[in-house]
Amino acid sequence: MSQRLKSDLVTRAASGEQTPTVPVWFMRQAGRSLPEYRAVRKRGSILDTIKDPQLSAEITLQPVRRYGVDAAILYSDIIVPTFAVGFGIEVVEGKGPVATVPFRSEEDLKRLRDLEPEVDTSYVIETIRILVKELDIPLIGFAGAPFTVASYLIEGGPSKTYLKTKSLMRSNPDLWHKLMDRLAKLAISSLKSQIMAGASIFQLFDSWVGVLSPAEYAEMVAPHSNAVFHALAELNVPSIHFGVGTAMLLDQIASSGCTTVGVDDRIGLDYACRITQGKVALQGNLDPANILMGKNIAIDQTKKVLLASACSPGYIFNLGHGVFPESDPQVLKAVVDFVHDQGAAIRKNAQTR
Amino acid sequence: MSQRLKSDLVTRAASGEQTPTVPVWFMRQAGRSLPEYRAVRKRGSILDTIKDPQLSAEITLQPVRRYGVDAAILYSDIIVPTFAVGFGIEVVEGKGPVATVPFRSEEDLKRLRDLEPEVDTSYVIETIRILVKELDIPLIGFAGAPFTVASYLIEGGPSKTYLKTKSLMRSNPDLWHKLMDRLAKLAISSLKSQIMAGASIFQLFDSWVGVLSPAEYAEMVAPHSNAVFHALAELNVPSIHFGVGTAMLLDQIASSGCTTVGVDDRIGLDYACRITQGKVALQGNLDPANILMGKNIAIDQTKKVLLASACSPGYIFNLGHGVFPESDPQVLKAVVDFVHDQGAAIRKNAQTR
Repeated sequence: MSQRLKSDLVTRAASGEQTPTVPVWFMRQAGRSLPEYRAVRKRGSILDTIKDPQLSAEITLQPVRRYGVDAAILYSDIIVPTFAVGFGIEVVEGKGPVATVPFRSEEDLKRLRDLEPEVDTSYVIETIRILVKELDIPLIGFAGAPFTVASYLIEGGPSKTYLKTKSLMRSNPDLWHKLMDRLAKLAISSLKSQIMAGASIFQLFDSWVGVLSPAEYAEMVAPHSNAVFHALAELNVPSIHFGVGTAMLLDQIASSGCTTVGVDDRIGLDYACRITQGKVALQGNLDPANILMGKNIAIDQTKKVLLASACSPGYIFNLGHGVFPESDPQVLKAVVDFVHDQGAAIRKNAQTR
Repeated sequence: MSQRLKSDLVTRAASGEQTPTVPVWFMRQAGRSLPEYRAVRKRGSILDTIKDPQLSAEITLQPVRRYGVDAAILYSDIIVPTFAVGFGIEVVEGKGPVATVPFRSEEDLKRLRDLEPEVDTSYVIETIRILVKELDIPLIGFAGAPFTVASYLIEGGPSKTYLKTKSLMRSNPDLWHKLMDRLAKLAISSLKSQIMAGASIFQLFDSWVGVLSPAEYAEMVAPHSNAVFHALAELNVPSIHFGVGTAMLLDQIASSGCTTVGVDDRIGLDYACRITQGKVALQGNLDPANILMGKNIAIDQTKKVLLASACSPGYIFNLGHGVFPESDPQVLKAVVDFVHDQGAAIRKNAQTR
């Protein structure tokens, strides 16, 4: 699809290229922070909205029109594949994924059969087909990484301590690996179908994996997340691997087979460069809290991020985590404009110093 | 006081010495996880309990009797000094510190006058005097680090995003530094009085500082936290510097003037050794979630922590964060016994491999 794109800055940067303009998109750029989203969103479950291709495509396009970002990201949710195979999970607005009967035993593996994307998630494929006709910038597909999806299935909902997840992992590693293997397969099927339908890059979200130590990540998570990137390698699209609080895991995350690492805002991009040693491009990492502090602070902090990014030739500007629902779209727009207007010069200047 | 101690393992380990038995204590070892605490605790504010020296001393001693830990930690709260100078802050059980009128402007600095410990917090000094007569192990004094205390004053209560704190810091660095300077002075006065009364080691709690990037920590926090350690240096007692999610800040935390770094459970102790390069002793870092998973998992994970600790001669076993209120005291007791019985041998074996 990429030959028809007006701008392929995101896919080029994600492949390691230093681009003439710094590309930018925001995690959660679509959704609750936009008044036009609140105007069109169906009442009831978010999954009902996701199952409506016309509406999902419209929501995906809203931030593209408003901000002029360099990529669209599919409006969907990381639990769509587990939902679609009938695990029994919902998305509750303002709360997140909730599983009425959480994952507890070997028996529960039966609720995680293989995904047949053309049948089970035909609405996702249809949404992507609508979008690629409309878009002249890359569409980012995505999936939840096995650990983060597992945490929702096991906890039954959002958690601060991940106690039940860690408990299953440490008390029954055999069952843990079976579950992770199932979830990796679901992510692979889903991502393959998204790319075949027209997504030209994908991001694997392992948002909560930062609660684990490096040793536990290596043993319990890395084999499964890496399997996702390896299975997708044959499709030859760039890929982004993202998590929060991953300072200690960054070397392993960069060695997963991804082409780009998404860096959260507590990690300096200079440190990310040292750890990843040019093996991958970088994406990030403005603290999303800055967006709530007004234009001046947001731009000031954006400059600092751009300066720190100079160590990485391949670079995509983004936040360190998702847009807060309370964010002012005008501040986000000002950040996009600043990155486009001055980002490349700031980086070049820092590189030649 | 230390000449009267039966065991000075904690102070020796905190000074960098490899001890013949691995010393152990737990953050939040006193308090809600103990039935004997729930039996004696006064109704009403936690501060009313803290202001009762007999009762506070009793609560401090409860975990020492039950577990046979190698140090007692004063039953108090990090907001006691700001409370005592009349800032207007309370501790709400199950919620934490709440400031009815949060810190917003220059004007609010007036609510943070100097602390006169003998007058303002005489109850703390009295509690320590009772304790040192009773104890034959070190008593740990403590204070909140300027950043973490500032976050409570500015947010008005616990926060997930620290938005108001970051906002003040980024929009008005001048006022921020004045506030941090005030809070460092309060911590210094309080800690000096605790040590003069008989505490033989102290811990500075910067629990929430892990939300900052290394660059921001260096500019906005390090000068003030380091000032605390430098001011206390003349008293010549060992000191522990602790925070959560501090992987990226560990080198700066170790260079603060402390003798020991408290490591949270997401950081491998082997990594902590590499970063701190033998400049400091280490304390930590069993995931407190393990205590809720039963004896077998808790002991199993304790072994892993002890193995990883071998790189640091000076070493104190602890959790990576505070004891959860739901913890079973019998599991904590089993961990203490295991560390005492087998900790030194496990470490020695790993060191000679």
